[in-house]
Amino acid sequence: MSELRADPISRCWTIIAKERGKRPHDFKIEREVRQGGSRVCPFCEGNEGMTPPEVLALGRNTDLRDSPGWSVRVVPNKFPAVSPNEEGSPVAMDGLLRHMPGVGAHEVLIESPDHDATWGSYSDGQLEDIFRAVLLRMKELRKDGRFKYFQFFKNSGRIAGASLEHAHSQIIVTPIIPVAVRDELNTAHEYYETTGECLFCAIIRKERQEGTRVVDQNSSFVAFCPYASRFPYEIQIFPILHSHDFEALYDDPSGLARLSKLLKGVMAKLEDAFEFLPYNLLLHTAPWEPGYGKDYHWHIEILPRLTIIAGFELGTGFYINPTAPELAAEELRYDLVSAVRSREEL
Amino acid sequence: MSELRADPISRCWTIIAKERGKRPHDFKIEREVRQGGSRVCPFCEGNEGMTPPEVLALGRNTDLRDSPGWSVRVVPNKFPAVSPNEEGSPVAMDGLLRHMPGVGAHEVLIESPDHDATWGSYSDGQLEDIFRAVLLRMKELRKDGRFKYFQFFKNSGRIAGASLEHAHSQIIVTPIIPVAVRDELNTAHEYYETTGECLFCAIIRKERQEGTRVVDQNSSFVAFCPYASRFPYEIQIFPILHSHDFEALYDDPSGLARLSKLLKGVMAKLEDAFEFLPYNLLLHTAPWEPGYGKDYHWHIEILPRLTIIAGFELGTGFYINPTAPELAAEELRYDLVSAVRSREEL
Repeated sequence: MSELRADPISRCWTIIAKERGKRPHDFKIEREVRQGGSRVCPFCEGNEGMTPPEVLALGRNTDLRDSPGWSVRVVPNKFPAVSPNEEGSPVAMDGLLRHMPGVGAHEVLIESPDHDATWGSYSDGQLEDIFRAVLLRMKELRKDGRFKYFQFFKNSGRIAGASLEHAHSQIIVTPIIPVAVRDELNTAHEYYETTGECLFCAIIRKERQEGTRVVDQNSSFVAFCPYASRFPYEIQIFPILHSHDFEALYDDPSGLARLSKLLKGVMAKLEDAFEFLPYNLLLHTAPWEPGYGKDYHWHIEILPRLTIIAGFELGTGFYINPTAPELAAEELRYDLVSAVRSREEL
Repeated sequence: MSELRADPISRCWTIIAKERGKRPHDFKIEREVRQGGSRVCPFCEGNEGMTPPEVLALGRNTDLRDSPGWSVRVVPNKFPAVSPNEEGSPVAMDGLLRHMPGVGAHEVLIESPDHDATWGSYSDGQLEDIFRAVLLRMKELRKDGRFKYFQFFKNSGRIAGASLEHAHSQIIVTPIIPVAVRDELNTAHEYYETTGECLFCAIIRKERQEGTRVVDQNSSFVAFCPYASRFPYEIQIFPILHSHDFEALYDDPSGLARLSKLLKGVMAKLEDAFEFLPYNLLLHTAPWEPGYGKDYHWHIEILPRLTIIAGFELGTGFYINPTAPELAAEELRYDLVSAVRSREEL
């Protein structure tokens, strides 16, 4: 038996193939052959000269740029999709066809000197450093009035789009608000106009009350498998109290610590449950324009890439998910218990 | 230098990384190891008993169902995403959360008895048979009033979602109009209300006038690389005269022949240009509800899967395309010329 479910934010439908009920070991994902860290990896410590000059480094005790000793390092992408150096003329029309120069920023965040590091294995401090670097780049890039949207994302595994092995994530800043974010803003705005409440806050309340899709939570953040999950074992993480802009964490070190702790736990569960897990992780935060305070609620999405986006998905925007989110959440909650148990048994 | 381009129909933006200018040999796609046809392939001739009972077969000279001698065969999917047997209650709400039973149809179209057949190598007659089977299934499935949208699509190559090698495509019929199609309908409706013309007709006229993105055309159909192509070497094929419903071809055998001829030529060019090309092919046609005559214009999309849909694409809905559509069209047009030349030289 399958069920169609609509995401209350994106309004997209997913076909949940409940009867398949795929658990982690039912997915056959070929483990990738890895090269390991080396003198030729441009992101390994000691090879700083192989990247464009850094725009930020944390943890280094010296003032010597592009030298070892860092915990997190941010460099411009060597093959940028968009660039701050493009001539910044506005949108132009050629009859029906709209275009504009590729103005923006495209940066690589090297997450750790350790080539093989994973989000589940980071110390809490390391994850905090990663987010601190994201926040610092946000503060800096926001100053450029041409930039409208800040997208932080991570591709892990080749099938999820990673072309380099060394633990890294990316920042792309675009000169327009992306359609995917605009759609969410519109839906949330409409909901706020009707009910006087943030749509995301309402969903968070419902998910915490029901509990069947909740994976983990603490006093500030909650992680759950969304009702219309497009991907098996998809997880969203929200601040429980309303907050539209991720940058608010810049002035909230204890919030940042709690986010890092929750996220690290969630990633450790996923890494425990799957032998090898390609995934994308991404931040959704309010655009850099005024007026979105009530209409948005920042969040992080973890999208395991165990299924293929194929012709049906590309033609319709529907997804097919062989693991009900209730089952995924139960599986991940159980893993926590069993992990604690097995540690106690040692 | 990169350029942002908006698709005039979906309104989604693509970043065209013009300076990369990737040509076919610049993409490193690992050729898949194939098993070949065999006694265990459920789609090979002689193995008809391995599939669910057929719903349609063309070309067989006997009345014996599920026996050899067919040119095209349609069977229910063994693991259907949606099913006509689901109880058909309407959309229900659980607070904010909308859901409905997975009512629909999911069928597999076995394109040829030849395990290794490709769209570029089919005889014109074979492609016509494939489309005739699609049209017959459309006519039949449309009779079920619960069904709203007919999606015909093909996944070729594992990375594009094909789980079985034998040449096949699929039909999924859904009980609601997909978001991707709804968005196109809305945009086209708005354009029609403003200008009195079909948006797709206007784009087709512009593309044929400009010519830089046209790959091939005949008296009834045109194939071009869309202005804001999301994928390198993406191609769309439209009927030149306005037609909202693919099913109109049922009563137009010469139109069907011209479509098959053009499409086969385009696929042969793509197969010539790439050593191995994973791709999705899909049909977009008007939903099964009245009132879309002026707002839609059916078309076929060919989406080569040479790039990865990763975190940035999933977060923003933006795509990054390293091959400008003008370059892709030029390359594919050139291939035609050089192919003719090399044939003449033989």
